Amino acid sequence: MDARALWQRYQDWLYFHEGLGLYLDVSRMRFDDAFVESLQPKFDKAFADMAELEKGAIANPDENRMVGHYWLRNPDLAPSPELTQEIVQTLEKIEAFAEKVQTGAIHPPRASRFTDVISIGIGGSALGPEFVAEALAPDFPPLKIHFIDNTDPAGIDRTLNHLRNNLASTLVLVISKSGGTPEPRNGMIEVKKAYAGHNLDFAQYAVAITSPDSNLDKVAKSEGWLARFPMYDWVGGRTSEMSAVGLVPAALQGIDVRAMLEGAKEMDDATRIPDVKNNPAALLALSWYFSGNGRGEKDMVVLPYKDSLLLFSRYLQQLVMESLGKEKDLDGNVVHQGIAVYGNKGSTDQHAYVQQLREGVPNFFATFIEVLEDRNGSSPEIDPGVTAGDYLSGFLQGTRQALYENQRDSITVTIPQVNPRTVGALIALYERAVGFYASLVNINAYHQPGVEAGKKAAAVILDLQTRVLAVLQKEKTPLSLGEIADKAGAADQIEAIYKILRHLHANQRGVVLQGNLGQPSSLKVSAS
Amino acid sequence: MDARALWQRYQDWLYFHEGLGLYLDVSRMRFDDAFVESLQPKFDKAFADMAELEKGAIANPDENRMVGHYWLRNPDLAPSPELTQEIVQTLEKIEAFAEKVQTGAIHPPRASRFTDVISIGIGGSALGPEFVAEALAPDFPPLKIHFIDNTDPAGIDRTLNHLRNNLASTLVLVISKSGGTPEPRNGMIEVKKAYAGHNLDFAQYAVAITSPDSNLDKVAKSEGWLARFPMYDWVGGRTSEMSAVGLVPAALQGIDVRAMLEGAKEMDDATRIPDVKNNPAALLALSWYFSGNGRGEKDMVVLPYKDSLLLFSRYLQQLVMESLGKEKDLDGNVVHQGIAVYGNKGSTDQHAYVQQLREGVPNFFATFIEVLEDRNGSSPEIDPGVTAGDYLSGFLQGTRQALYENQRDSITVTIPQVNPRTVGALIALYERAVGFYASLVNINAYHQPGVEAGKKAAAVILDLQTRVLAVLQKEKTPLSLGEIADKAGAADQIEAIYKILRHLHANQRGVVLQGNLGQPSSLKVSAS
Repeated sequence: MDARALWQRYQDWLYFHEGLGLYLDVSRMRFDDAFVESLQPKFDKAFADMAELEKGAIANPDENRMVGHYWLRNPDLAPSPELTQEIVQTLEKIEAFAEKVQTGAIHPPRASRFTDVISIGIGGSALGPEFVAEALAPDFPPLKIHFIDNTDPAGIDRTLNHLRNNLASTLVLVISKSGGTPEPRNGMIEVKKAYAGHNLDFAQYAVAITSPDSNLDKVAKSEGWLARFPMYDWVGGRTSEMSAVGLVPAALQGIDVRAMLEGAKEMDDATRIPDVKNNPAALLALSWYFSGNGRGEKDMVVLPYKDSLLLFSRYLQQLVMESLGKEKDLDGNVVHQGIAVYGNKGSTDQHAYVQQLREGVPNFFATFIEVLEDRNGSSPEIDPGVTAGDYLSGFLQGTRQALYENQRDSITVTIPQVNPRTVGALIALYERAVGFYASLVNINAYHQPGVEAGKKAAAVILDLQTRVLAVLQKEKTPLSLGEIADKAGAADQIEAIYKILRHLHANQRGVVLQGNLGQPSSLKVSAS
Repeated sequence: MDARALWQRYQDWLYFHEGLGLYLDVSRMRFDDAFVESLQPKFDKAFADMAELEKGAIANPDENRMVGHYWLRNPDLAPSPELTQEIVQTLEKIEAFAEKVQTGAIHPPRASRFTDVISIGIGGSALGPEFVAEALAPDFPPLKIHFIDNTDPAGIDRTLNHLRNNLASTLVLVISKSGGTPEPRNGMIEVKKAYAGHNLDFAQYAVAITSPDSNLDKVAKSEGWLARFPMYDWVGGRTSEMSAVGLVPAALQGIDVRAMLEGAKEMDDATRIPDVKNNPAALLALSWYFSGNGRGEKDMVVLPYKDSLLLFSRYLQQLVMESLGKEKDLDGNVVHQGIAVYGNKGSTDQHAYVQQLREGVPNFFATFIEVLEDRNGSSPEIDPGVTAGDYLSGFLQGTRQALYENQRDSITVTIPQVNPRTVGALIALYERAVGFYASLVNINAYHQPGVEAGKKAAAVILDLQTRVLAVLQKEKTPLSLGEIADKAGAADQIEAIYKILRHLHANQRGVVLQGNLGQPSSLKVSAS
C-alpha cells in the first residue's frame, strides 16, 4: 500500500474520543473490508452478550455469578437499588477513610500520622494497585506504598527491613477475597509477627479488603481492625481495580479515584455502542482476532512509550491471559484459546528486543501506547528545536513504520497525558475488549479453573511434605528416597519427595542428606 | 510416561555443578535419544565455533569484531598479554574507585560522602545493572542506585524530583559505548542542566563508562570528570554486565564483583566441556531447539520463584531476543529466527497467567528458576511444620507437574541461594547457551542490524520535524496537512507530519491545530 493509500486508511479507521482525547489507530492491522464484514455476525452476538451481562445476566456460568465491574463506574446500572447504594456508600467510605488517614484523624498509637502502607495481595489484588501506583502516585505521596505480592520469605524480609524504622507508622492492607489464598495469608501472618516483634498491636494498623463474612473478614472484625472494605462476588480479581481493591490503596496515595472512575465510565459508555467502527473496544477485539486468526496465533507485545506506564503490560498479562487462556469453549469443545502478552516500555525495549520484532520470528503484533504530553512543564532543547520528548515520539513513529514495512502489524493507542481519567479509561477499554473477544471465540472470560487446579497441586505437595517428615521422625537409620516413598505410601512420588527433602535440607529444617547431591539414588536421608 | 520412568529420566538427565551447587533439569522437555543423536553434528560444530571464538576469532563478521566477554572472567584467556593486563587493571581500578567513594576519600564538593548514584544508560547499559541491583544490592547499600534508562521527560523528572534534596551528594554514571546513543545522551544533557540549576559543577559528580576516545570520553576528559572507565569493542552491550558497565554500579552498591566474576568463570569452565549431556549451556540450547523446532516456534516463559530475580526475564529478553532475532542466517538465507522471552516471577505469575499456560494456547515452554534457600535465617511456621517458603516451593513443583501433565514442557534451574556467585553463573550460563543455539541455527548472535535501522528511522522523523517547523514559521496563514507536506517536500509523509504536529501542539511548542482533532483532513495548522 503506498503512502497516500495508507494515509487514507489511517483516516478511515481512526477512532477519536473527544471527551477523553483518546485516539485508537488500527490502520496498521492489515485486515480488509471483507474480513470485517465476515465478523459482523459474531460482533452482533458480542454486543448482545455484553448488554445482557451489564443487566445482570449470569455471565460466568461455571461459578453462577453475575459480572458487574461496570457498575462500579456507573452504580445506576447495577441491577438492584440495594447494589447501587452499596457501591455508592463503599466509595464514600473509602474516600472518608483515606482523608482521615491523611489528615491524621486516624493515626497509629505511637505516631501522629501514617507515613507508609504495605499492601498484601496477589494477582488481581496486586497487579492493578501496582500499575496504578506506578502510573499515578505523586512523587511524594501522603503515604508511600510497598507491596508484598508473593510468598517469598526473602521478599517479605526485604520489604519489612526497608520499613524497620517506620513500622510504627505503617498501615497494612490485607487484600484477599476469601482470606484463604495462601500467598496473602502467609504475608499477613509474617507481617503480623513482625508487628508483634516490635510490640505493636497489629489490629491498630490493619485494614481488611475481603468478601463480607470471609474468614479474613471475621478475624478483622473480632480483632477490631482499623477498617474493613468489601470485595463483591460479582467482581473478578482481574477486573477489581475500580473496587475497594484498587481504590483504597490509590486513595491513600492521594490519587483522585473519582477521576479514575469517571474515565472508566466514559470509556464504558463509548464501548457500549454496537457499531464496530465506532467502538474502540470492538476495534481492538477485531484486530486481535484478525492477527491471531481467532486462535491466539500471535503474541500481543505492549509497548507504552512512557516510564510511568511500565506495568501496564503486566496488568494486561493477567487481564488478557487469565480471561482468554481457556481449554474449552462455552459448548465444551477443546479449543486451547488465549493470547500471550508481554512488553515493558519504549523506547527502552527498542534496545532490548525490537531487533527480533523487526527481523525475527513474526509471531506477534505490537500495541504502542503513545502519550502526547512529554512532561509537566516545558522541556529544554537537546538539539536546536528538538527535545528529549521529540526523540521519544520519533522512536515510536520510526519503530511503528519499520515494523509495518517488515509486515509486522501494530495498533496505536494515544492518550493526551497519564492521569487518573486516562488510566481509568485504558483499564475499561481493555476490560471491554477482552469481553468482546471472548464472545467472538465463544469462551467464558470470567472464570479461571487452571488457577484453582494449581492451588490443589501445591496442597498435594505440602501434604506429602508432612507425611515425609513424619516418616523421618520415626526412623532411627538413614533411608533412601525409595524407602521414604514406600513408607510414606507414595511410591510413585519419589521425585517430588526428593525435591521436598532438598528444599528442607537447604533450610536447616531438620533433614540431613548424605551422598552425592547430583545423584539422587545415592542419597541417604535422616532427621537431624 | 509413568512416574517411575519419569523419575529415571529425571536422574538420567540431571546436571549438577558441585562447586556452584547448581542443578539443571531438562527431563520435562520431551525429546528422545534419537533427537539428541540427530543434533550431535550441529553440536560438534557449535563446540568448535565456541572454542575459536574464545581464542579471538572474528565471531561477529558484520562488524569485524572479536567477541570476548568470556575473557572478562578469566583474563588469562584473552588473546594478547596487553588485553589481559588491561582487563586486570580495569577491575582493580573499579574496586579502588568504589572503595574511595564509599569511604569518602572521593566525595562531592559540598558533602562528606556520596549517598546516591544515578545510572544513565539504555539496553545493555541498563538491563544488566538493573537486574543485578534488584538481585544483589543490600537492603541499605552504601550508595542507593537510581536508573534513567529512557528518553522520557516525565521519567527523568520523576527520578530527579525524588533526588532533589540529595543532588549535592549524588554521583552520576553515564554509560554509553559511543556517547552518541540518543537516550543516554539526552538523559545526560537533562541531568547536567539539573545540576547546573542547583549550582553544582556536574564534572565533580560525573563518571563516564564509554569507549576510549569516544565523544563522551573526550568530553569527560576535557571537563575533568571524576573518573572514566572503558567499554571494549570486543564486548557487546548485551554481554557487558561483567565489564565496567555492570561492575561499576555493582561495586558502588557494595556488591562483591569478584564473586560475580568467579561464578561466571566457573560456569564458563563448565560450559566449555564438549559433551552435550555434561554441559548445562548445551542442554539449554538443545532444549530450546527441541521445543521450537530450531525456528523459535515456542516462546520462552521465564519464572523465577524469588522476588529478587524479578528482572531476570527482562535481562534475558535482551540477551536472547537481540542475539537470536535475525532475518538472515550466516549464509544469507532469509530465516526470521528468534525466541520470544517473557515472564516475571512465581508464584505471583501463577495468579496472572498460569491459567493460560496450563489450559490455553500451547505456544511456549517454561523455565523455572528455583532457589533452595528461603531466606537468611529461620522461618516462622505458617501452619504446623510448614513455612511460607514451603508454599513457594510447593507452588513451583505443583505448577511444573501440572504443565507436564498438560503436555507443556519445562526446564528447571536450581541454585542454592541468590548471591553474586550464582548470579554471575546464571548470566554466564545463558550467554553461552545463546552462543550455542546461534551455532545450531547458523546465525550471527553478536550483531543487531535492526537496532541501527530503528535509530535511522527516528532520525528521519526528527529531520522532518525541523523541516515542518521551518515551513510553518515562514507562513502567515494556516495550512492544511497536505499543504505543509508539499511545502516541506514530503508529500508522501502526511501521516508522519500529522503525528509530529499533534505532539508539538500537545506540548505548547509553537504549533496551533484548529479543526476536528478526530478528522485530520479538517485541520488547519499555524505557528503560534
